[in-house]
Amino acid sequence: MAFQARARHDNDGSVILDTRHHEAGLNCFQPEQSITRMLVKYIVCDPCLVKQRTDEAEQDGIVGSDEFTHKALPDPFGGDPRAHAPQPRTVQRQREPVYPLHAIAQRTFGDLPLGRVISMEEARESADLQSLLDIVAEDMQAINRIILDKAVSDVEMIPELAHHLIDSGGKRLRPMLTIAAAKLVRYGGTGHIRVASAVEFMHTATLLHDDVVDESATRRGRKTARMIWGNQASVLVGDFLLGQAFRMLVEVGSLPVLKIMSNAAATIAEGEVMQLAAAKNTATTEDEYLAIINAKTAALFSAAAEVSPALAKQPAEEQSALKSYGKNLGLAFQLVDDALDYAGDSARLGKSTGDDFREGKITLPVILSFRRGSTEERAFWNRTIVEGEIKDGDLEHAIALMKRHKAIEATMDRARSYGAIARDALAIFPDSREKASLEKVISFCVNRNH
Amino acid sequence: MAFQARARHDNDGSVILDTRHHEAGLNCFQPEQSITRMLVKYIVCDPCLVKQRTDEAEQDGIVGSDEFTHKALPDPFGGDPRAHAPQPRTVQRQREPVYPLHAIAQRTFGDLPLGRVISMEEARESADLQSLLDIVAEDMQAINRIILDKAVSDVEMIPELAHHLIDSGGKRLRPMLTIAAAKLVRYGGTGHIRVASAVEFMHTATLLHDDVVDESATRRGRKTARMIWGNQASVLVGDFLLGQAFRMLVEVGSLPVLKIMSNAAATIAEGEVMQLAAAKNTATTEDEYLAIINAKTAALFSAAAEVSPALAKQPAEEQSALKSYGKNLGLAFQLVDDALDYAGDSARLGKSTGDDFREGKITLPVILSFRRGSTEERAFWNRTIVEGEIKDGDLEHAIALMKRHKAIEATMDRARSYGAIARDALAIFPDSREKASLEKVISFCVNRNH
Repeated sequence: MAFQARARHDNDGSVILDTRHHEAGLNCFQPEQSITRMLVKYIVCDPCLVKQRTDEAEQDGIVGSDEFTHKALPDPFGGDPRAHAPQPRTVQRQREPVYPLHAIAQRTFGDLPLGRVISMEEARESADLQSLLDIVAEDMQAINRIILDKAVSDVEMIPELAHHLIDSGGKRLRPMLTIAAAKLVRYGGTGHIRVASAVEFMHTATLLHDDVVDESATRRGRKTARMIWGNQASVLVGDFLLGQAFRMLVEVGSLPVLKIMSNAAATIAEGEVMQLAAAKNTATTEDEYLAIINAKTAALFSAAAEVSPALAKQPAEEQSALKSYGKNLGLAFQLVDDALDYAGDSARLGKSTGDDFREGKITLPVILSFRRGSTEERAFWNRTIVEGEIKDGDLEHAIALMKRHKAIEATMDRARSYGAIARDALAIFPDSREKASLEKVISFCVNRNH
Repeated sequence: MAFQARARHDNDGSVILDTRHHEAGLNCFQPEQSITRMLVKYIVCDPCLVKQRTDEAEQDGIVGSDEFTHKALPDPFGGDPRAHAPQPRTVQRQREPVYPLHAIAQRTFGDLPLGRVISMEEARESADLQSLLDIVAEDMQAINRIILDKAVSDVEMIPELAHHLIDSGGKRLRPMLTIAAAKLVRYGGTGHIRVASAVEFMHTATLLHDDVVDESATRRGRKTARMIWGNQASVLVGDFLLGQAFRMLVEVGSLPVLKIMSNAAATIAEGEVMQLAAAKNTATTEDEYLAIINAKTAALFSAAAEVSPALAKQPAEEQSALKSYGKNLGLAFQLVDDALDYAGDSARLGKSTGDDFREGKITLPVILSFRRGSTEERAFWNRTIVEGEIKDGDLEHAIALMKRHKAIEATMDRARSYGAIARDALAIFPDSREKASLEKVISFCVNRNH
């Protein structure tokens, strides 16, 4: 039995945790359980317990850390930690108030399963994603099983490293698009599950290689695989996951799908090389930058949405519509990402504000500030981004310049504009729950603050 | 008109060079000409001219360097360098004797086309490859055109970096196997050209990533791409080439072929991770090592041979036969490679003897010497391979230990044994020119000294 946790408000207003940590009689997780992932709506959490996980970087009280454990710590419900029964338990004996928290994924720490916890505020913000989550929930379970299955190898390092990233609490937005698009076009088969899994594998492979190329130390608040297993293993396991992605696609056996995905694979790599070539070049134009993110980010979003009508052998116009939806959603997503790197809440982002600045990455907020800036200001951008000479206070100055030239606002405006294109692309489809959920994803991407 | 060069012995014994460097009236190569590749049998060469290219590392006289140029240097035939006519010219006015040399490939240096030159002795040794070369020559021209075409990208760095490796004088053994196998099974279509090109792209992508993982400084006697463009670009261009490989395979549209190739892609990566995990571990057994080279080397040889009967929809036994041929040929090839690294002629190998030793790579000669060695000798292997503590004279001592325990001979015996399996795998095919050429490739792989 896999880890499960659900919470609901009881009649008397107290919070009930429906928890099934492990089989009765077992007092620890089995390895195959500890790597199970799931989506849960709410989870209650004892702040004492949370604090044991938050001492390092407690930033806003109880949800200072986004990880908490369910094992080997005092039972928040006052019971015997070895006696969790697989039935609902009313939370009554807490020593301090129990806060309802929103857990969206599970990851592991050694063999300890950890929940990723976000605040209620953030839970409200992600409500835009909720209708999509509801629609894809069942299929995502199947996808999660396939992902675990296909990350297996006799070569120990492969599943270890792959799981590090797979279990790290990513939203799995891309495969969710594939599933929702399949439902939108009333696809009746099962191939979309494998195709969506391949989409996620291709994304994971890209992240592994990205972190090597960018020399990144953290991703989603955790050490990158390259910091633990090295660049070499990250490159090779990325190659393995890409190979597995194509294996799965071949199993599905749709040549149109294979065509879309192989085009995406080559285009993403092309975009990454473009970005590498443009690195530290403040003269990059907005158009050049758009070409880069079109290839490196939007191509996979676009493919993820387009594969479903292709698989379902739907008319060309439905395929183009979802292709355009995915592409513009991807552009919006990336631009918001760029804006958040200068304006976001680092605790929620899972990465620090200013990462792009410190890495000398050219993103739209920098491009706009540079173009709109004075000669002096351009000298500042050249010193920091091009020369990489960053002093104390430079990030704050960069953000101040962006504010002066409304660069973040302009970036968000652009994102909203691509979001509008994505929304219009869907217009040819009759109204449905799926269409509404895909529209809401646009709001999620544009309004998210993490 | 692409660059062409052919030589034959005239009645009077003098060597004739049939050369067509460029269109009459043009005095420089067009970019599209300068990157054309071809196979030529013989080429004559003025030693004065060769010496202009050999000052850096002249090792055995006239063929000290493996590069020479055909442009912007004094005309070796005494004529006006801008007046090469597209017809045979008898070499009569040479200032020094003209040596017949064997040029097997062309590469570029900036926009200068360079020939890769090997000695007559080596030419004799490669005679085993000649029948294969003759059979595949025409199709290889088509493949070379596709390879050039598919390495193109608007992102400048991609073709630059890709060509560095593509033009570096590799034998293109793997795509040649695909072509010869297609002819062996009387495949009547044209898909094998694209499939063979994809095989070569997958190999090239692997080499790019390999050099990053192994931190190699040279390959085939030239700086590796990572030393010129960096690890980051090597990783990403490798990804691009892999994406292009799948694009080409999708164009051909055979799902059985796609299945073989996607399996190979995942297996190769798995093998590379296995090798990484086994690195510097002298306790690796011969079986474990075989599993590694089976995955990292033999899988692509195997796929290269197997795809052709799959494409031609031949009976399963022909597919298994060629799969087995390719796999065992690949094992033999890799084992000879391992032996040559300790016993080879570094000038011809294009890499220095002892590279594996210095990189702490576990290969069969080391495994056998370690197992057959005394406690003292094992301590030596642990100090050098595991600890990486290498002093002057250690490589010579390693080679002496290998001689004492007949480790190189045993490695070559193993290689011959796999070669025999490969030969027997072909037995089900009726005798033909193609079958004979594939058999000779085994001799080439086993007997080569470079």
